[in-house]
Amino acid sequence: MTARSLSGPMFDMHDPTRTHDPEDPRGRGFRRRFSVEFVRSAIDGNVFRIGSEQVRLGESHGRVLDETVIAKASVPHFARAAMDGFALIAKDTDGAGVSAPVRLHLIGQSRPGRPFPGQVLHGQAVGIATGAPMPVGADAVVPVEQAGIEGDALEVRTCVAPGRHVGAVAEDVAAGDEVLRPGRCLRPQDLGILSALGVDCVTVVRQPRVAILVTGDELLNAGSSPSEFAIPDMNSPMLSALIRRDGGTPAVFGPLADDVARLSREIRDRVDDPTIDAIFVNGGSSTGPEDHAPALIRELGTLLAHGVALRPAGPTGFGVITGKPVLLLPGNPVSCLCAYDLFGGVIVRKLGGRSAKMPYPVVRRRLAAPIVSASGRVDYVRVRLSIDDEAEPIATSGASILSTTTMACGFVIVPAEADRVETGTTVEVHLYDAH
Amino acid sequence: MTARSLSGPMFDMHDPTRTHDPEDPRGRGFRRRFSVEFVRSAIDGNVFRIGSEQVRLGESHGRVLDETVIAKASVPHFARAAMDGFALIAKDTDGAGVSAPVRLHLIGQSRPGRPFPGQVLHGQAVGIATGAPMPVGADAVVPVEQAGIEGDALEVRTCVAPGRHVGAVAEDVAAGDEVLRPGRCLRPQDLGILSALGVDCVTVVRQPRVAILVTGDELLNAGSSPSEFAIPDMNSPMLSALIRRDGGTPAVFGPLADDVARLSREIRDRVDDPTIDAIFVNGGSSTGPEDHAPALIRELGTLLAHGVALRPAGPTGFGVITGKPVLLLPGNPVSCLCAYDLFGGVIVRKLGGRSAKMPYPVVRRRLAAPIVSASGRVDYVRVRLSIDDEAEPIATSGASILSTTTMACGFVIVPAEADRVETGTTVEVHLYDAH
Repeated sequence: MTARSLSGPMFDMHDPTRTHDPEDPRGRGFRRRFSVEFVRSAIDGNVFRIGSEQVRLGESHGRVLDETVIAKASVPHFARAAMDGFALIAKDTDGAGVSAPVRLHLIGQSRPGRPFPGQVLHGQAVGIATGAPMPVGADAVVPVEQAGIEGDALEVRTCVAPGRHVGAVAEDVAAGDEVLRPGRCLRPQDLGILSALGVDCVTVVRQPRVAILVTGDELLNAGSSPSEFAIPDMNSPMLSALIRRDGGTPAVFGPLADDVARLSREIRDRVDDPTIDAIFVNGGSSTGPEDHAPALIRELGTLLAHGVALRPAGPTGFGVITGKPVLLLPGNPVSCLCAYDLFGGVIVRKLGGRSAKMPYPVVRRRLAAPIVSASGRVDYVRVRLSIDDEAEPIATSGASILSTTTMACGFVIVPAEADRVETGTTVEVHLYDAH
Repeated sequence: MTARSLSGPMFDMHDPTRTHDPEDPRGRGFRRRFSVEFVRSAIDGNVFRIGSEQVRLGESHGRVLDETVIAKASVPHFARAAMDGFALIAKDTDGAGVSAPVRLHLIGQSRPGRPFPGQVLHGQAVGIATGAPMPVGADAVVPVEQAGIEGDALEVRTCVAPGRHVGAVAEDVAAGDEVLRPGRCLRPQDLGILSALGVDCVTVVRQPRVAILVTGDELLNAGSSPSEFAIPDMNSPMLSALIRRDGGTPAVFGPLADDVARLSREIRDRVDDPTIDAIFVNGGSSTGPEDHAPALIRELGTLLAHGVALRPAGPTGFGVITGKPVLLLPGNPVSCLCAYDLFGGVIVRKLGGRSAKMPYPVVRRRLAAPIVSASGRVDYVRVRLSIDDEAEPIATSGASILSTTTMACGFVIVPAEADRVETGTTVEVHLYDAH
């Protein structure tokens, strides 16, 4: 590795999306940096929605629909009372009022699921409950409050028009209607509609299965007690939760030793496994002597970008092996989170047919202190909200300080164009907590 | 049932939270209405956080922490390199620069998990990778870019201060630190921190188990094909999904026939079942002859409110049986969703130790058309966003038209004070989709 110039970032004349970024101390030998946009467009061009599967209705909430749901029958499929009252022929109430009630003959009851078996003729009425089928012959309902009963005599004190308080056939959904379209993330109420249509199974996009290959000689299994110079794997529990949040299914392999032959075999096995939709390699993603992953991707497939003008996730890479997306995420936990938020989540959501947009709620807040960035580099800055509800950058340079992301309420993305964001500027804070 | 006055809503002199609401055609015999606030405060006073359980770290994402996590050890628990480079004694670099390099003797390597076994003395340096333990004696790291190697000779071209590029012991978390507090909804990165601390099991609030008792003679199992006058249960799949979204576990019982003895037994069984934390009775919640639930709650426990000044969920009730909360939700599906959004979700989230706040993102939009409400009544109005990004009320009176909630992007809550909201007013739209 050679000493690098200490001048400011220089744009590569041949590819303006690549910049030299010699001032970033996380540089560690990257001779050029890819822009965040370049990596995003590489993901866009190489990550595609996966196939679909059938799930039971009760399991479909939050899944992405992959069929057009056409109503086979109408909802409701019979006319029904919209109120508790009396089903009758509207014409029989002509001129009725409080001072001039009309008297009808009460001939029976209609209850939900237990319709009145006969027919309503002029001068007749049937007691009816909300949701019960309208008896044959009746065309309106008088609410219970506007009538009185004496034995089998009904006194109606209001005049109703045909159709009054009747839920018509198909008023909710008509047979043949397109009810839900592919790409829809199913809501709780969608399950209600699907159930009403008699849909028991739904075709949804599969949940992308993402292999997480965690590398590092120093790593113990997640949740183990730390020992002398070994530390528990922090990133696979975090990445697994993030992948699940974004609709994927994580599959953790490792921790793996920093051994090039072993890592190569693990990557090839995941590439060959048809149940794996993407491979995330965590750790060994930089340019040091133990950073085997980038060369392996180059050897086994195509490394489309390696080294990103992004702090604190410079040592990020993205490539493809026989069509399968491979993301290299830095081992430092904050860098790992940053690389997931900017790239990993996009891959998982795109595979699963979801919006590429980050799932964090965004609020706009004034900045309580300046953020120093560098032109040409995107910064992922953890902030907390001050007592005055301003965004306070959490001052730390350490990519390994994961507690900054537990103390922070969220983060601000400083765009590549900015080299400094002044106090008082209104910034968008991406909130870690959904609510 | 007697005819009711047709004058405007009147406040009950003895309880201003109750109003007579004779003009609401959904009244169906409610002689008085409880305000939404009254029901909310009844929930507040009668629903409490349930107990806790231990879960594995990997299952803890999104769960509510119920312990104070104190760091048993520091993170990191050894000093480590923050960059790839050379560990040395800072004092040895005094005066070093590009034009005046200092020469040191390279005596070995320190790798993550494989520390250098010896000690660094003056004039010596050890190659070191990011995250590797600092060798005994060394107090700074010179980045690889600012040095050159020839055999075992190292040329250092910069001067560093003690501690430079060293991750100090406890820089992330110090032993004894309070890392996470009870009530925290665990983030992906929290799992990372917990893993680093060697935490394998976490104490979290149990997921409240909510019994859903679906009643109605006309109901078939969810997802069945509709038959002559029978309809599939739409509400239990919807309620189950809503309860899961809010961190609970649904348990569906039914559909049950409108049979008072059967319903009474089912309710008592759920009250006696210690694994059930709350009971939601769906359907039969109004004042008609088949509406058995309110009287049963009154008989078995206390019915704190029945009949709410809320459209379209007037026939809602809330009570307690031997300390267990019981919510009566209307059978009409939009009413059911409305009653869940305003009350059911609050119960589930409070039981589970979560914020009572509705989990829907809120955006502010101009109203594209007026909303007619009634003073004293809260309205839950489904809206869609117009091409101009204005909130357009979806015009329908039907509480049974569930498709309005699938077409809508969200809803507007019209407060009790308002009787009309004019076009152009800025309203808060609660979005059904989280993103």
